[in-house]
Amino acid sequence: MISSAVFPIQRISHNKIQKIDDYLAVEEPVEIRISFLNEQKKLTTQPLSITMRTPNPGQDIELAAGFLLTEGIIHSMEDIQKSQQIDEHIVLIELNEKIRPDLQKLERHFYTSSSCGVCGKTSIDAVKISCPVQVPVSNSMAVSPSIIYSLPISLSEKQNTFTATGGLHASALFDCKGNLISVREDVGRHNALDKLIGAAMFDGILPLQSYILLLSGRASFELIQKATMSGISFVCAVGAPSSLAVELAIERKMTLIGFLRNERFNIYCGAERVKLYGMAD
Amino acid sequence: MISSAVFPIQRISHNKIQKIDDYLAVEEPVEIRISFLNEQKKLTTQPLSITMRTPNPGQDIELAAGFLLTEGIIHSMEDIQKSQQIDEHIVLIELNEKIRPDLQKLERHFYTSSSCGVCGKTSIDAVKISCPVQVPVSNSMAVSPSIIYSLPISLSEKQNTFTATGGLHASALFDCKGNLISVREDVGRHNALDKLIGAAMFDGILPLQSYILLLSGRASFELIQKATMSGISFVCAVGAPSSLAVELAIERKMTLIGFLRNERFNIYCGAERVKLYGMAD
Repeated sequence: MISSAVFPIQRISHNKIQKIDDYLAVEEPVEIRISFLNEQKKLTTQPLSITMRTPNPGQDIELAAGFLLTEGIIHSMEDIQKSQQIDEHIVLIELNEKIRPDLQKLERHFYTSSSCGVCGKTSIDAVKISCPVQVPVSNSMAVSPSIIYSLPISLSEKQNTFTATGGLHASALFDCKGNLISVREDVGRHNALDKLIGAAMFDGILPLQSYILLLSGRASFELIQKATMSGISFVCAVGAPSSLAVELAIERKMTLIGFLRNERFNIYCGAERVKLYGMAD
Repeated sequence: MISSAVFPIQRISHNKIQKIDDYLAVEEPVEIRISFLNEQKKLTTQPLSITMRTPNPGQDIELAAGFLLTEGIIHSMEDIQKSQQIDEHIVLIELNEKIRPDLQKLERHFYTSSSCGVCGKTSIDAVKISCPVQVPVSNSMAVSPSIIYSLPISLSEKQNTFTATGGLHASALFDCKGNLISVREDVGRHNALDKLIGAAMFDGILPLQSYILLLSGRASFELIQKATMSGISFVCAVGAPSSLAVELAIERKMTLIGFLRNERFNIYCGAERVKLYGMAD
């Protein structure tokens, strides 16, 4: 388990290309399981939550214990009998025999919004499994670096609430010439993207194969998964992508650009949609 | 419905205090409901998700439609019969009669990690209702601005993976003299905080009434809720807090500081724990 991964990228900076190794923050799913004595005093094991986390030695147990405490399932160290890393994607907390968690409440805790909505699978593997309904990506897009540079500038001109509060994430949709089509802001970045895609659906422009998505912050697995469900093939993020976001973008044959700011960006995959000819190495 | 709210704060900058009005990004819950014909061809209405979002006129319907699409419950505009804002906290999407969503799958979509784990209530109101198990906050802390200024500097010296990847959130625990006790990093900020609190539990230092929590990014409702479950009374964030984070911090009588960087910060509530005497107005 490591918290960062090396990945080969192309860094574009003021019309120069560099092939370098970059470090990605690792994002991987972990399932938090609990075991406890049920009302019939039978030992019961139950998955409680799948969360996308950065793996680090020993920290899955901390994560699970902290989650149980902050969600109110346990109240102190004494409520934990034993904790165990089952494998790199599963951690098990055995509750003290006095703890009788409310099963119905536990089921509602089971968080699957990061797993595939179409498959509805809740196992760890499902997070990485392709959804059966796939919108094909565009193969004919070609976007020049100068258009890519311009996207965050166009976005910042429109981000009124962000400017006032500093507290919002934005998702913006551009056509392949860099014209801003729409912007949505939200305290939750998944909400900003859902709003943007919902608005595009109401505008009758789905699927979004010929559009560019700009994310004001980091690109997580969840955001790339949402983008792919709407047919988006070209994603730019002002911040860093996670390892699993890059993995999914590669699998879906998308273009993923990160750290887009000040006439610079990194290409993580799908460089064929960026007009790189004529640039100096 | 508005996306920002005016809030009176004290801004501390290089040992001067200013009382000003600040703008907060509004964070409020919305429930996404769907109605559809069940297998017995009976019209069924079911809550699908509660999400903490920024309200904006018309955008709840976009959010709901986008969520249904990106989670794979619908596949095009034609799958929506009608959409309706029931009130400021509920939006209803009527599915086309041909759509038969998988009920079991839908239940798993119901996302409650933002609502109170102790109460286990899933209604909108529950998100704001106090949890019955409350750890009392500290009333004896007194932290000087110079200690507060030093916290992000101490954190950045420890944030190795962030420095390499730019892709991680951090939560850090300090004692009231500004000594760094522990740091946890993660792609998910709720995970970084759960890890930190879990580690504190294993270290036997819960409840955390006499410690300071530093968040590397924004302070959302969910993070303040998690902090309060561990007894933390003093939270500093490098980024902006949301409206509901401030509301909860006030209700729990916590100190909440935001935009802590470069010898500056904003006090949103709990100023009595900050040593402000002797500072110029």
